[in-house]
Amino acid sequence: MSQLQRLTIADSQIQESQISLTAEQSHYLSRVLRLKQGDRFIVLAPHGQGWLAELMPAEVSQQSWIGKILEPVVERTELPIAITLMVALPKGNGLDEVVRQAAELGVTCIAPVVSDRTLLHPSPQKLDRWRRIAQEATEQSERQFVPSILEPVSFMDSLQREVALEQSHAAFLCVTRLASPHLLSCLLSPPSGAIPTTSITIAIGPEGGWTEAEVAQAIDAGFQPVSLGRRIFRAVTAPLVALSLVAAAQEFDSNPTQKV
Amino acid sequence: MSQLQRLTIADSQIQESQISLTAEQSHYLSRVLRLKQGDRFIVLAPHGQGWLAELMPAEVSQQSWIGKILEPVVERTELPIAITLMVALPKGNGLDEVVRQAAELGVTCIAPVVSDRTLLHPSPQKLDRWRRIAQEATEQSERQFVPSILEPVSFMDSLQREVALEQSHAAFLCVTRLASPHLLSCLLSPPSGAIPTTSITIAIGPEGGWTEAEVAQAIDAGFQPVSLGRRIFRAVTAPLVALSLVAAAQEFDSNPTQKV
Repeated sequence: MSQLQRLTIADSQIQESQISLTAEQSHYLSRVLRLKQGDRFIVLAPHGQGWLAELMPAEVSQQSWIGKILEPVVERTELPIAITLMVALPKGNGLDEVVRQAAELGVTCIAPVVSDRTLLHPSPQKLDRWRRIAQEATEQSERQFVPSILEPVSFMDSLQREVALEQSHAAFLCVTRLASPHLLSCLLSPPSGAIPTTSITIAIGPEGGWTEAEVAQAIDAGFQPVSLGRRIFRAVTAPLVALSLVAAAQEFDSNPTQKV
Repeated sequence: MSQLQRLTIADSQIQESQISLTAEQSHYLSRVLRLKQGDRFIVLAPHGQGWLAELMPAEVSQQSWIGKILEPVVERTELPIAITLMVALPKGNGLDEVVRQAAELGVTCIAPVVSDRTLLHPSPQKLDRWRRIAQEATEQSERQFVPSILEPVSFMDSLQREVALEQSHAAFLCVTRLASPHLLSCLLSPPSGAIPTTSITIAIGPEGGWTEAEVAQAIDAGFQPVSLGRRIFRAVTAPLVALSLVAAAQEFDSNPTQKV
């Protein structure tokens, strides 16, 4: 299955047992990848469903192609919890690589935020660019689900979204130089009596970290301050360290010899 | 302490209670950072020693400066074990970012290897470039120790170096699509009776992974095959995930409430 091309589609492209392809997708499969009639590929719908499909000429035009759905594809590369990465916008194009790697690592949603120390406000074109990168990374990493990228908002507005969340939600604010527990400690040893976590938000600050006021606001909104270790990470590295730990804490097996 | 400029020096620059500065370092501190006589900075020697120093004019020339050693600096940002990242050379300039992030994450040594699926052989200039990047990243991330970067060798030659290592050494080969235990499982639950680990090698393959022959050779050399989870990472992301887990497994505290 790993050799097959993966294509993300919109819900509107699914028509009974067929997938209509955009002109761009049709061109990509037939001309760039040189797939022929009957060749197989995988289509991924926005909510994580996937199908094995085969390439067929469209009846309406000899130039275009459709996908005939053969069977659903059930893969299990998604994490069992929803992970939101709340990330202060880094300098320049720094978020491009964060989006790409976070998508590989299994993130569900990326919420860029403008913090007190954020220097630049993003242009609207950036959002389209990040969404395209997330889609590409999803296909390459063989996930079923394309992470959503929210419009950048202020850190305060972003915190408001957290306050209303369920008790099964856990929120962590990564801080430096504070006597905070390690993120991995919190992930592996939740407070006794806690409701099992089904969603996690991880907030990562800008270069220079969150301001004291921001840390206080986040704690008010229910965030647990955590450490990522003794070293100082760049703003583009910290999200990946945190997501690596969240994913591993889910997939880690305390009895490795029984793993199949 | 975090505000002070950090400068890595060679052992030969240490002369009793003084640090001689290269013309470039002298220019950087006095002209670029505009430090004045008596301003303080931190110098880091190759083996992890650090000193607080203050800028003084050199007696021999009015244009140049020396550092007067004030006191040793004891910081504890280094991990308590030695970590070697054995990494198959990725495409293009991919290793640049791996070196930068691995240095941030606390790696001790990076051993680039040429694997069966490595496309390009690196030019000698690359090695200088990687060493410069490692040094910059060490200064930025406030570590005491600049990771060494070995000359690229074949994977087989690199495995030979492992065979001779002590029993307190653990070696992990990251593989995809194999029923291998998760790296975090192995890190947190070593085999009972095992000698405590003082050094770890993590081997990360190229795009497309190690060949079957390479996996077999590594197992013969004492490597444990491990998984980094269900998703497929690019060759430049996998090292970061693995090193995040190795570092966290060292610094993680199973009883977070008692952490100071």
